[in-house]
Amino acid sequence: MRTIDWNDESNSIVMIDQTMLPEEFKIIECKTLASLCEAIISMRIRGAPALGVAGGYGMALAARLSSAKDVNSMLKDMEIAAKTIKATRPTAVNLAWGVDRILHAVNDAYDLKGIKAVALSEAKKMADEDVAKNKKIGEHGATLLEDGDTVLTHCNAGRMACVDWGTALGVIRSAVEDGKQIQVIACETRPLNQGSRITAWELMQDNIPVTLIADSMAGHLMRKGVINKVIVGADRITGDVVFNKIGTYTHSVLAKEHEIPFYVAAPLSTFDLEGWEETVDIELRNGDELRFFNGKPIAPKDVNVYNPAFDATPMENITAVITEKGIYYPPFLLEELFVD
Amino acid sequence: MRTIDWNDESNSIVMIDQTMLPEEFKIIECKTLASLCEAIISMRIRGAPALGVAGGYGMALAARLSSAKDVNSMLKDMEIAAKTIKATRPTAVNLAWGVDRILHAVNDAYDLKGIKAVALSEAKKMADEDVAKNKKIGEHGATLLEDGDTVLTHCNAGRMACVDWGTALGVIRSAVEDGKQIQVIACETRPLNQGSRITAWELMQDNIPVTLIADSMAGHLMRKGVINKVIVGADRITGDVVFNKIGTYTHSVLAKEHEIPFYVAAPLSTFDLEGWEETVDIELRNGDELRFFNGKPIAPKDVNVYNPAFDATPMENITAVITEKGIYYPPFLLEELFVD
Repeated sequence: MRTIDWNDESNSIVMIDQTMLPEEFKIIECKTLASLCEAIISMRIRGAPALGVAGGYGMALAARLSSAKDVNSMLKDMEIAAKTIKATRPTAVNLAWGVDRILHAVNDAYDLKGIKAVALSEAKKMADEDVAKNKKIGEHGATLLEDGDTVLTHCNAGRMACVDWGTALGVIRSAVEDGKQIQVIACETRPLNQGSRITAWELMQDNIPVTLIADSMAGHLMRKGVINKVIVGADRITGDVVFNKIGTYTHSVLAKEHEIPFYVAAPLSTFDLEGWEETVDIELRNGDELRFFNGKPIAPKDVNVYNPAFDATPMENITAVITEKGIYYPPFLLEELFVD
Repeated sequence: MRTIDWNDESNSIVMIDQTMLPEEFKIIECKTLASLCEAIISMRIRGAPALGVAGGYGMALAARLSSAKDVNSMLKDMEIAAKTIKATRPTAVNLAWGVDRILHAVNDAYDLKGIKAVALSEAKKMADEDVAKNKKIGEHGATLLEDGDTVLTHCNAGRMACVDWGTALGVIRSAVEDGKQIQVIACETRPLNQGSRITAWELMQDNIPVTLIADSMAGHLMRKGVINKVIVGADRITGDVVFNKIGTYTHSVLAKEHEIPFYVAAPLSTFDLEGWEETVDIELRNGDELRFFNGKPIAPKDVNVYNPAFDATPMENITAVITEKGIYYPPFLLEELFVD
């Protein structure tokens, strides 16, 4: 199944609960905006492209649940919903992009039923487009990988970060589909271990060879000459930097030191044309993610913790950005990508 | 109490079980060589200087437990014990150094009672010397730290890695004792979390301000200009590289990129005058350390894992090595350190 989908029978959002992987493959249903927001905050669903679609479906759900009796009241309800959803993960630009796309689409509707229908059909279209865009990213990116490559990836920019296929892992999947032998080194990605829990699991499901390491082992493996390429996803790309899972910047410095190509794979919806590094707040998450593991303390319970969810990698550390439109080599103007 | 000590009443080695920290401060007693080896392998005791003393006390225990009826048989028993102890952690040079020092010392003894007495008194002397050396390292190193510094450290090169005081953390303790305000950033140090479990706990006990981060966050903090210095310990120093906890090399590359001084604090017993990077095997530990956490799976149970305990940092990435004899700036010949 898809990572996130709409259930037409129960009129709810269904998703794979990624916090339970790989122990349990559990499907959860969000019937209210509150349960969707909880799922996003708790990272039951995560990954920039998947969050974009979650935003879209969330707005469709908001329209459906609204008890408004006229168009203006319903649009007001949806604007409140939009703010609530966007606030759950402030750094990921796709979430806001998905929400805004529905807000924009419903302008075409002229009655309550129309708003509900347009919101849902637009959200479904976003989900379908996401898969198609990932396949395009994969096609372009696969040309950068050679038979026999060992590719390091961080966090999960795979099927589970999108509706299907994946961005960084989509590139690897496409290269494997082309008949290339690719080995993947998956960094566990502390503190929430998306690399060990999700990326390793995803790749094993597809029989793509994967080796799990701690994040701190990447430098050692690069120095040993084991790694040929690095591919990661992105949560927001501004003119100057790529925001992605904390640890990405460190990998980019290591890749530069060892002259290893460093690629970012992301759909155009990840680009923030107006933003710059200094205009974006990096989400700080609860320190308990580092103080406890499965409820058991692994540090003094009252220790001071700094727990940013993302870091910023300057464009000069990036060899190329792979999008559904093609491969772009910095320096480039973001606007170039949006010209037909 | 000391991290490791000899109990004269029960004729056994007593130590703090570091796998239980910070939840429980538990003292364990090793009355047999088997229980000592288990404690070393399971890292109930760890840290290069502490392992040196564990090796010494282990040999004293081996002499005491030997049922040999003549000097030659006892020395043979001790040689077998020496091999057994050394094999538990092959990369840490101090362990072998501690074992060999006792083997050498007992050459002076002329009967069974004498061997037992010399082995024990030499081991006790090693423990006392370790504390004195740490204080000297602290004194020298403290001159490198400035009031207001924020210092990053990796793993635990503190009191718990030694008999007392610590090497890297000893430098920080000495600087604080001199009246300098020092903030410490402790990397959690995957996969066994010595940073979160031990370093954070140790520093909080001493009221030294400490902030816990995931290993992958170091680059981000360096880029933000938060970190002024890096200080780590060492498990083995050869003419070309410093072997230390996996992740150290990555921090050294990041420090170089951000022009941050990178210091290694270690006693002379850590130096391997004959060795080179290529002559030393890096200990590969069980992959389950990355597959499970507190017995719960955090990755597919059969995922391929690469889990080296150490990495090698080339001398050119190191600003200075701080020893009990003084501060040495690469390039230098290891032999220089052993000239009076």
